[in-house]
Amino acid sequence: MAEPTFDKLKFDSNGLIPAVIQESGTGRVLMVAYMNAASLAKTLETGKTWFWSRSRQKYWLKGESSGHVQTVKRVTTDCDCDTVLIEVEQVGAACHEGFKSCFYRELRADGNLSEPIEQRLFDPAKVYGKK
Amino acid sequence: MAEPTFDKLKFDSNGLIPAVIQESGTGRVLMVAYMNAASLAKTLETGKTWFWSRSRQKYWLKGESSGHVQTVKRVTTDCDCDTVLIEVEQVGAACHEGFKSCFYRELRADGNLSEPIEQRLFDPAKVYGKK
Repeated sequence: MAEPTFDKLKFDSNGLIPAVIQESGTGRVLMVAYMNAASLAKTLETGKTWFWSRSRQKYWLKGESSGHVQTVKRVTTDCDCDTVLIEVEQVGAACHEGFKSCFYRELRADGNLSEPIEQRLFDPAKVYGKK
Repeated sequence: MAEPTFDKLKFDSNGLIPAVIQESGTGRVLMVAYMNAASLAKTLETGKTWFWSRSRQKYWLKGESSGHVQTVKRVTTDCDCDTVLIEVEQVGAACHEGFKSCFYRELRADGNLSEPIEQRLFDPAKVYGKK
């Protein structure tokens, strides 16, 4: 099969589209990261989530270091086709800080962040090695 | 109370941050839109979602025309503080196309979109007037 070109989708001026990653079943929003057309094609082809790292400027298989891969269950896009929503089964935890979801702190009305609202599931130093 | 400055959050080069809007209770992801610091402050202050429209370059109270407002239940941010997740109670439907969620079409492996995977809840022509 030829690689899809995703003509219907609107990538931004850097060729990226935000991907909201949601846990299938629980509905928990786990993370938001960015994909380009090639990483989105790889995600659909392999059934694992591949992103484009804006800070490292490289492709990134989620779970490559940690083993915490995401298996794709369904991909939808929104009315104006500038975001994708990817429902996944998450091995371990999504956040590199050790939490199930990257959204582990509340934003308070005064603009400050709360302490974590959930327990860490793993110690990042053990999973990713000491930095 | 002084308007919060959100020093912890990372707004992009246009001063915007993506906001994922999720229905409280069902966990359904309803839409993704953009906020600047002022619209985020207004959202936290009023308990209704206010966005910055990139296409129209203006503030936008969700539901202003349709009555389909969103009442904020909780706001969290992710580990790198460049996205907010807003859990809401949704009146009516979130999508201006008449669907509960803007994510009403699947993205297929060939890059094409499916037909709507859910029923329309309202007729946009009746809610927004004929264009």
